[in-house]
Order: sequence, then C-alpha cells, then structure tokens
Amino acid sequence: MSSIFGNIFRVSTFGESHGVAVGCVIDGCPSGIEISEFDIQKDLDLRRPGQSHITTDRNEGDKVEILSGIFEGKTTGTPICMIVRNADQRSHDYSEIKDIFRPSHADFVYQMKYGIRDYRGGGRSSARETLARVAAGAVAKKILSQKGIEIFSFTQQVYNIKTEINPSEVKKEDIFSNIVRCPDKEISLKMIDLIEQMKSEGDSVGGVICGVVKNCPVGLGQPVAQKLSSSLASAMMSINAVKGFEIGSGFASSLMKGSEHNDEICNTDGEISTKTNHAGGIVAGISNGEDIIFKVAFKPVSTIKKPQNSINTDFENIKIDTIKGRHDPCVLPRAVPIVDAMSAITILDHLIMENGLKF
Amino acid sequence: MSSIFGNIFRVSTFGESHGVAVGCVIDGCPSGIEISEFDIQKDLDLRRPGQSHITTDRNEGDKVEILSGIFEGKTTGTPICMIVRNADQRSHDYSEIKDIFRPSHADFVYQMKYGIRDYRGGGRSSARETLARVAAGAVAKKILSQKGIEIFSFTQQVYNIKTEINPSEVKKEDIFSNIVRCPDKEISLKMIDLIEQMKSEGDSVGGVICGVVKNCPVGLGQPVAQKLSSSLASAMMSINAVKGFEIGSGFASSLMKGSEHNDEICNTDGEISTKTNHAGGIVAGISNGEDIIFKVAFKPVSTIKKPQNSINTDFENIKIDTIKGRHDPCVLPRAVPIVDAMSAITILDHLIMENGLKF
Amino acid sequence: MSSIFGNIFRVSTFGESHGVAVGCVIDGCPSGIEISEFDIQKDLDLRRPGQSHITTDRNEGDKVEILSGIFEGKTTGTPICMIVRNADQRSHDYSEIKDIFRPSHADFVYQMKYGIRDYRGGGRSSARETLARVAAGAVAKKILSQKGIEIFSFTQQVYNIKTEINPSEVKKEDIFSNIVRCPDKEISLKMIDLIEQMKSEGDSVGGVICGVVKNCPVGLGQPVAQKLSSSLASAMMSINAVKGFEIGSGFASSLMKGSEHNDEICNTDGEISTKTNHAGGIVAGISNGEDIIFKVAFKPVSTIKKPQNSINTDFENIKIDTIKGRHDPCVLPRAVPIVDAMSAITILDHLIMENGLKF
Amino acid sequence: MSSIFGNIFRVSTFGESHGVAVGCVIDGCPSGIEISEFDIQKDLDLRRPGQSHITTDRNEGDKVEILSGIFEGKTTGTPICMIVRNADQRSHDYSEIKDIFRPSHADFVYQMKYGIRDYRGGGRSSARETLARVAAGAVAKKILSQKGIEIFSFTQQVYNIKTEINPSEVKKEDIFSNIVRCPDKEISLKMIDLIEQMKSEGDSVGGVICGVVKNCPVGLGQPVAQKLSSSLASAMMSINAVKGFEIGSGFASSLMKGSEHNDEICNTDGEISTKTNHAGGIVAGISNGEDIIFKVAFKPVSTIKKPQNSINTDFENIKIDTIKGRHDPCVLPRAVPIVDAMSAITILDHLIMENGLKF
Repeated sequence: MSSIFGNIFRVSTFGESHGVAVGCVIDGCPSGIEISEFDIQKDLDLRRPGQSHITTDRNEGDKVEILSGIFEGKTTGTPICMIVRNADQRSHDYSEIKDIFRPSHADFVYQMKYGIRDYRGGGRSSARETLARVAAGAVAKKILSQKGIEIFSFTQQVYNIKTEINPSEVKKEDIFSNIVRCPDKEISLKMIDLIEQMKSEGDSVGGVICGVVKNCPVGLGQPVAQKLSSSLASAMMSINAVKGFEIGSGFASSLMKGSEHNDEICNTDGEISTKTNHAGGIVAGISNGEDIIFKVAFKPVSTIKKPQNSINTDFENIKIDTIKGRHDPCVLPRAVPIVDAMSAITILDHLIMENGLKF
Repeated sequence: MSSIFGNIFRVSTFGESHGVAVGCVIDGCPSGIEISEFDIQKDLDLRRPGQSHITTDRNEGDKVEILSGIFEGKTTGTPICMIVRNADQRSHDYSEIKDIFRPSHADFVYQMKYGIRDYRGGGRSSARETLARVAAGAVAKKILSQKGIEIFSFTQQVYNIKTEINPSEVKKEDIFSNIVRCPDKEISLKMIDLIEQMKSEGDSVGGVICGVVKNCPVGLGQPVAQKLSSSLASAMMSINAVKGFEIGSGFASSLMKGSEHNDEICNTDGEISTKTNHAGGIVAGISNGEDIIFKVAFKPVSTIKKPQNSINTDFENIKIDTIKGRHDPCVLPRAVPIVDAMSAITILDHLIMENGLKF
Repeated sequence: MSSIFGNIFRVSTFGESHGVAVGCVIDGCPSGIEISEFDIQKDLDLRRPGQSHITTDRNEGDKVEILSGIFEGKTTGTPICMIVRNADQRSHDYSEIKDIFRPSHADFVYQMKYGIRDYRGGGRSSARETLARVAAGAVAKKILSQKGIEIFSFTQQVYNIKTEINPSEVKKEDIFSNIVRCPDKEISLKMIDLIEQMKSEGDSVGGVICGVVKNCPVGLGQPVAQKLSSSLASAMMSINAVKGFEIGSGFASSLMKGSEHNDEICNTDGEISTKTNHAGGIVAGISNGEDIIFKVAFKPVSTIKKPQNSINTDFENIKIDTIKGRHDPCVLPRAVPIVDAMSAITILDHLIMENGLKF
Repeated sequence: MSSIFGNIFRVSTFGESHGVAVGCVIDGCPSGIEISEFDIQKDLDLRRPGQSHITTDRNEGDKVEILSGIFEGKTTGTPICMIVRNADQRSHDYSEIKDIFRPSHADFVYQMKYGIRDYRGGGRSSARETLARVAAGAVAKKILSQKGIEIFSFTQQVYNIKTEINPSEVKKEDIFSNIVRCPDKEISLKMIDLIEQMKSEGDSVGGVICGVVKNCPVGLGQPVAQKLSSSLASAMMSINAVKGFEIGSGFASSLMKGSEHNDEICNTDGEISTKTNHAGGIVAGISNGEDIIFKVAFKPVSTIKKPQNSINTDFENIKIDTIKGRHDPCVLPRAVPIVDAMSAITILDHLIMENGLKF
C-alpha cells in the first residue's frame, strides 16, 4: 500500500481514524524555512470537524505536534514528522459496522484486498487521513509563498447551486468569509441552506471545487509522463470522494471548435499572455504563466441516514436501516483545505524536481 | 524531462516527429509471454495516420522493429526495445513554424523551458510520440488478456454528437466496424459527417472517449497515494489534447444525492455485485470487481487552417494566416488505441505491483 | 534529503538525536502479520546504548510506541508508524560543539549543504537515527521468518582480532551469548579486552561485520540495475561509519584465478548446490540458493578523547582538546542489529517486488 | 527486471549480446548540451573488444547511432536513445552452451528466475550490455566536465601486481598511455605480462580498479538513504564481475584507530581541506570537497578454457571440457571506461537531484 506522494518532496501519511494518531513525514523539504506548529494548526483548523453547523457534529481539537526536522524554528532539510493524536480512541461500540459492508464505502474492497480491516470509523479509508495531507500542505504552501506562488481553491458548486465568479478574480479572503468556502456571498447562502436541508433529511450532496495557482513560473511540468496536469489529476483523484478532474476548459472543450478554443498569444508592453485561458495555465503538460485553473468533482458522501440494501461479511444480503454516527452532509467546505494541500504538494514537488532543493 | 510511465512495468518512450525514430523500452515485463512484431503492428495500424479519409492525409507505414527482449518468440524478462523509423525525415521547409509560437501548441512552453526546441513537426510534443505507447500497450494488453482482463475504449462523443450506449454492453468488434470508432452505428455516421465538415472548414473538434476494463480482479489499486483512479487519471491526462478525466459518475455525481448515488451491494446466487455502478468499478481507489468505466475529454486539436494572432520567437505580435501541413480535424478515432494502451499499461503495472512478476 | 529506503516495502525514517522523537513509517507492508511492540522492543534492546560496559555509558530506555497500521495485533496493510521519544532532550550545554566542525563528523558537510544544522548530539547524523531502522527491520525479519528466510550477522573482526569461523556454520544463539556479538567465544574475549583498552585510552577502533541470509529463494534480485548485491551494498553503505562492502569472496577474489574461483555446480541427490561459495550466494545480481554472505567494514568512530586540529564555524583553525560526552569506543556490538535490519529490509523489498504483497 | 539507473537523470539499458541491438535511453538529460556521435564513439572505442592483444579476440566495430533527443547538435531535454547494432547475429552454433549451466555464469539463475534464457553469448547477462552504459556515461561526463567535475579511473591491481601511485596524483593521459589502463608505466608492463600468461594458460584473473572524482562540489549526497557512497556502491556493484566496493580507507580502516583515521580539517589561506583523506571525499554520505576516491574489486572472469564440473539443464551432473569462444583473460582494461560511466551517471544524477536540471 502506498501512502507516499511526490518524487523529491515526498509526503508519507499514516494513521487510522480511531487508531493512536494520524500524521505524516515530509522527506526532501528544503532547509532554512521558518515553520512553527502555529502555521500547521491554522490550516488544520480549516479542515477540523465540528467547525460549523454544516459540518459533522464530531468535535475534535486536532492539535498537531512536530516530532522532527525543525531546529530553532527552521527546517533543517531533514524529515519533518508531524502527528495529531486521536482525541477519542476509547472502545466505542462498532458492532453495527463491524460485520457489514456499507454501500459505496471502502469496507468491501479493503476486506477483499487485505483480508483484514480496521473497521473503527472507517480506519485508514476515513477522510481523517487527509489531516496529514493538510499538515504537509501547510509546509508546502509556506515554501511556495516565498517564491510568490499563491495556492487557493473554493467551493464552486454544491449540488445544483453554482457560482459563475471568474476563478482568476477570486480573492482569498472572500473564500474564508463564510462557512461553505464560496467567495460569492449570495450563492454561499444558498449553498448553506441546501446543506442544512440535506442534514435534516439525513441525505448528502456533492459538488465541485475549483483550484487556482497564481504566479506559477513558466515551464513547470514534464512534457510526456509527468505532465503538470497529470500530477495534479493524480493528486486530486487521491482525495476521498473525488470522481473527476478537469484542467481549464475540461469536458466543456469537447463542445468547442479549434478556432474558438485556441488561446491566442500576445505581447502587451512586454508581458506575454494569452487572450483566453482555455488551457487552464498548462499547455502540453507545462505551465505557460497564466493562472492554473482546475476543477475537482466530489460525489455525495456515502454515509447517509436512510435505509439501504447491502451484504454482511458472510456475504449474506442485509438491510441497513440507518448508519449511526455524525457525518458531513457535504464534504466540500472541509475539502477546500485538502485541495489546497494536494495542489501545493504537487506544485512544490515539480518545482524542486526542476530547480533543485536550494531555496 | 520524464518520459517514463509506471512503477515496475515501466515504459520509457523516446523520439521526435521528424527525428530518426520513435520508440519505447519496456522494463519489468514478465517473461515467457509470446510476442511478435505482428501483435504490435496490429495496434499501430489502428493509430496510423492516413488510415481513413477523416484522419490526416499524411500516410506513414509505421513499421515496428523489435530490438531486444524477445527470444524464440517469447519475452525473456529483459527490456524490450521497439522502434519505428520515421519514413520521411528529409529537410522539409520549416521556415513557417520555426520562428513563431503557434497558439495552444507546445512551441512557447518548450522554448521557455528548454531554451531550444525541435520545431520539425512539433518534435517531441507531436502526437507521433504516442505510437511508442501504443506499441507498449499492445504488449500490456496481450499479458492482461492471458489473465482474462479485457481492455477497450470507444468514441462516445464528437462535438455535440453523443451515443447513449451503455459502456458495459459495448462489443469490441462494433467499435472497429467503422472509422470513427463508435460502436453505435447510427451515431457513428453523424460523427463522420461532422468531422468531414470540420475538415472542409479547416477547423477542428474534440469529444469524449469512454474507456472500459472488464474482469479486473477485486482489490487492485492502493488506497491513498496510488489509487487506481489516480493512476488512470494521470495516464489519461498525459495523452496529448486531453483536458479532463472522470471515473464512473464523474462530474454528474455532483448533481446526485447520496441516497441516489450509493451503489447497493447484493449477493445473487453467490455472485457479489453492485446494483448500480456509479463508482465506475473503483471504490476508495480500489477495484471492486464491477466494470471499470472512465471518460476522457479531448479538446479540439490546435492545428487549424484559419487566421490567428500570436507572437514570434522575438516576442513580437504577429498574424498567422493559416498553418500548412496535413492534420486531423478530430483526433478521437486515432486516440482510441492510445487510450487503450495507457489503460492497459496502468492496469498491468498495478497488477504487477500487487501480485509480482510471475505470470 | 532522502530518508526513504526501498521500492515497495518502503521505510521512511525521521528524527534527531536530541529532538522530540526518532521513528519510522513503513509503507507497503503486507497485511495479516502478527506484530507487537514486544517484537520491536526486543531488537531495539540489542541496539540500545548502555547495554554493556563496552558500549557508551549513555543509558536510554528507548521504548517504542506503535502509532498506526496494527489492528487487533496484526498488520492491516496500512502504513506502520513507530516512534521512540528521546528521554532526555533538556537543554544541555552544547556550546562546546555548536561552533566547531569536529574532524570526520558530519558537522562541516551538513552546514555547507543545508546552511543550518541541529548540532545537539549530532542531530540527524547521529547513529541514533538507526534505531528507526532497527524497528522497521524487526518487522521485516518477522515477515521473512514466516517464509523460512533467516537473517543474522556477527562481529567478525575488531581491529586486528578476527574470527576464522565459517559464516555458514554460525549459530544465531552464539552471537548473542556475549556482549561483542562474536560467535567465537575465545575471540570474543580478546575483542572485549581490546575495546576496554580503547575506552581507557579515549581512542576508538573499527572492524568488520559479516552478514548472512539463509534460505533465500533462488532467483531474487534484478540482473542489471537492481542487482541484489547492489541493493545490499547500498543499504550497508548507508549505515553510519561504514566504509566498504564485499559479497562472497570480495576483494580477495582479485587474488584468485578463474579456475580457482569458479563455483562448480553439482546435483547431490536432487539438491542443486555449488561446491564452493565464492559468489556469496549471488550470481549476476541474482540469488542462487546458497547462503548469502557479505562483509561490511566499519571505520573507528570519529568521537575520541584526544586533542585534534580542526576549524570553527568561522573557518578559523582551532585546536580541540577533547570532546566531552559518552560514546562507543567500538560501534560493532551495537551495529550488528543495524546490519540485520538493513539486510532484512533489503531482502524483503526485493521479495515483494518479485512476488507481490500477498503473504 | 529493472535495467533503469538513476532518479532524475535516468539511464535505461536494453539489448542482448547476440540480439538485434544494444542501447540505452537517457531520460531527464539537461537541454542545450552539445553532443555528437563522435563524443559517444570515443568512449565506446575504449571499451571495444579486440582493441588490444590482451582483450578478447572478438572484434566488433560497435558503431553508435543516435535515434532521438539531439537537435542541431544539442540535447533538447527530451529522451536520448542510442543504439549499437550487433554486427554478427548470424546463427552460430550454441549447442555447446544451450543445454548446460556454466559455473559462476548467469545461466542457472536466469533459467530459474525467468524459466527462459537467451543463451546466445550470455544474452542479457553478457558484459556487452555495458556498452549502453558507456554510451550514457559519455553524455554524463560531458555535462559534468562543463561544471568542472572530472571523472576517471584506472587499473590499480591485477592479481598480485599493484601500483602504489597516489590516486589524487594520477594524470588522465597516463592511464590511456598503455593497454592495461594503469598510469604506473613499470607496473603496467608487469600487468600486461601477467594477463598474456593467463591468456596462454586459458585461465583468468581479476583485480582492482580505483575511481576518482575531482572537483565535486561540497554537499552532494543525501545523508541517510541516498548517501553518495551508497549510490556509488550500488552503481559499481551493478557492473559484471564486481565483488566489492570501498570508499576512502575502506576495509583498511578497520585496522586503524580513531586517532589515526580522523581527517583533521584546516584552513590554508582560505582553502578548507582535510590533512588526510581517509574519508575518500565523502563524510556521512555527503561530499566534503576532497577528491572522491573509491575502489572496485573484480573477480576473475568465469569463462576459462579448463575442464570444470557442472550440471546440464536436466540437472544432471556433467563435465565441461573447455568453453569455446573468445574471451578476456582479464576484464579490467575494458572495465575502466565502464567504471567511469557508472561514476559519471551517479554523480550527475545526484547533482541534478540537488540543483535541478538547469545547466
């Protein structure tokens, strides 16, 4: 099982939802970067369960502890291990899910693949694993920001509610001005209403997060096997509940003609840019200096409070009345920092592969 | 620059459009597999330019030569090198594109990244590179077929013309019964009409290819960093002109509720299956035994015969009247074997990572 | 900086000598293997400082804590994180070494490479890092033992005192019957005497550890780039203070003729074996079924209590009177479990690359 | 089977002794480097069989052809494929070795590992594969020389004849002034005599090659898993017939005390250097600016013209009278360019990992 992301800047995550701790090791981090637990905690708090009434009611502090790699407030170039102990790992009653395979959950495939699974709260397949990525992403984002590269993402669509805001014009502060992480104030209120409704119905919805990378230098990405768009797609598809990835015009490009889709290049007083950005900032796998813009599709979360049919671990057909526990009716608000983290880890890894570790 | 795909079954491609040869080395291929140049040629012929009137008029034989790794008709476990010499590498007149950056082509990013570019026919960024992948894919497909795993894909949509055929019910022979590679006879005719129209207009269109993997064993894929869906997304995004990837319900999942989207599991006379397949055969990054179904979005090709604005290599604004040369008005018919190849390479690499090299 | 060993069974170590904790993450571990903290602790105790009067007087408990990857006493196939908190990380007085570069220590190269170094007790370059490898090695050894593969090593030479025992006839229990880890009782006493003498002189000595792998299946190892002998050499050279590696006849082979050196193959009642084992169990990079036998040369440790010349961090020439602190006059006794660990990690990684993760 | 060396500068070799061709693909080569077939051919000629009366009588032209990656005389950053067609692949009579396993050859392990082997001239296990490495090494050496880094190696010992010349004082031109590649004129004559004697006896001898890297910048190498010494050891152990690797003082360090072995550091008019170089230029896995000096032990080649016992492919005991064919009585003269190549590939790969691809 591989839980290691990246080629030179490598992030190895570990930990189960209800095990002792969740965390990560960052191998290949440049030295001399100021990093404190505060930098990490800030991002973890944006992903934290229970942060608002539209996320799960589960409330965990998620306090990070840095175990290595930082000396006198700076990275030393050695591996950085960070852990978050699971607040509550007392033996809950898991009898409900121990012997069944919940529809669209990892239960069945884990059991078939490994012959054993830590069923407590989803174990390793729980989205709790992503807190380790957010911690690593906080480090990556800090390093990138020193190069002037800005990473952010926002909730663009929840179910059938969608903002038409131009991603290149989004202001980072507007994203975090509301609990649904949509920079369009009006739309954000509708999204919140919808999520509240889903919560009361015991159902769930998905949506689309749009990711943006600003000031990425021209020339990042490999032209055949490690295209920047391939790496971003792989990173995004690794996030729980993600079903699709698009760069720039994406699937909509299939409804355009070449004469409409081509991005004309122009020199405006010495600035090279394209008139349109259907490329989404990446041409032939390589960044062209425009904003990198991609979209990530999230399915509705699998945990719902409705009756469903499935099988148990003896492969007998069963009826599941409702699944207990506290879960998110919509993961997007908490997934925004995860998309940011994976975006930052991917961009930084490419940057280091190209330009080396000297920062 | 990395042109190496895979982890254990590794495919390294090389060659430029108008260089001496294009080819690949397969490292980590199981031994004892019967492979002949005929097996490879068969697939290359499906990708060959000039194979029908809706592809480019360029006509190249693309004869493969195996240089190593095969002994008495079987793989020996050693690296397999295959090359196709470029029939026509005489010095054409490239003055037209030598000093300009064509919109939405790799010209600009290659020049900025490497400070040099082989401008002859697009050089390394030419889709001609993909013939090397098709050659490697032919080997992968043959190995997979011995495990009972079937790989195919088909043209699902060209511009606004789309077939509604159920991917799980597509018959492989129907795909290759027409030149546009769409198993829906009626729709295929409309697609061909449209492409002919584009050709006459000097414009281009894109579309969607749907990929299918049948009989993939349960449990393939890693659950965090090397999800099978991540690997497939990365592989597909590496194909020229690809802008998006979806697994199963994809972006459409964002418009469904959890109660609609969850795939209920049932045991029917000992056969475990899901009632629906919104997952597209992959749950939490791991195959669940259902058909793997994914979609790949292709933009309209950038080479069009219409006037466009751009800059030259001195960064001066210029007007391009029309780009000479013979090109595909729609890449999808020839991209079908490429999607197959990348799908097969990806699935086989995962299979070998899981189960080892003994076949 | 890479601290990740292995290709599929990957061990990522982290931690500094006087940081918060030292530990490792094992990624790609087969599922269903019984592992407890006791299994790990047993090996850590063999590496522990202060375990006998010929090792350093520093006395650390080195209690391991497993943070993830184990459920109900068994591996689940998910990453295993293990940490050992540093008992004593109070702010010592490091003024003595903070501003100087000790001869043959990592001080100078770390400072030049990273522009920063955690000077406390050597930081990351301290051999304390190897406890993380021993922890991972304990897991690897347990898995290998289930395949019948036995891993051990022993002190073959300390300075000019050397045992002539045949490595293939060494009994594991004899190795740990004395504190110097030499299975030759008589020689072990002389070695202990010598080390005691070095300790009293404030000097240090090195020596040779011989590693043995028994019952390795025929056919392990890749024939060109990932020869089993290459992987073992790389693993051994990564251990602190190691200066050389030999497989089988090693450097002595240069003093033999082909007619003496060739290992004749014979079939004795159905058992294929070689009459001699100059190959050391590996031919052309691949195991041949004989005992794998290799030697690892350790230099005398750099920390001595004698006056030395060097430079300080301002690059000024200085005289170092003596370096305070408690150190090993000879690392070999404590290095035996480290050689075992790296040997086991290497063999298991190759085994999994060949045969997959199913155990 | 992996035949890929390196992490970013990756060299993939392919080809069998009596197959169609032997060659390599270099992936991750910096752009803008002037490379011609002449640069490659020069090094291939130093490795060529039949170049002198002390090498094999087999005489092959070994003409290199560059298939990709070079445009207008310069590297473009795209993969470079180079091949050498095997001059003579007519069907020889291999009945002699087809059905037997020659002692200390790869025959047995290949058959057991793969269930099939290309027995013609040793197939993939033939040292003929190393010509692909020499070709790639020629590219690496040229790039390194632009950074002022000089790579060379020389025959230090043949059987019991050894030069005492200081490796740091060797002049490159002296190495190639004689056919045995030993810069010590007097000793070289004795070595030649000895090899001639072995040839006439039908026996073989091994020896030691000493490798030198001059002007390696301080700070190259990773401190734990990818120590520069680990990478060099792995690279050297991958060369056919190599049995041991030492850095600096190597195995001899075990006979020194710490007080003798430590390399004192001093500042001489602003130049930082060590008084001795027992480290061999690498401390704690990282280059310290001194000459990198290592030794590689070669066993006597396995092909001898003397009677030997072995088994056939039916596992029956047999007597081999003599093995026909023309072989080297001592591989060292032809192995010098191979050691150079692997040294250059390793150093360059580390340099690119540290500092990126921009040259």
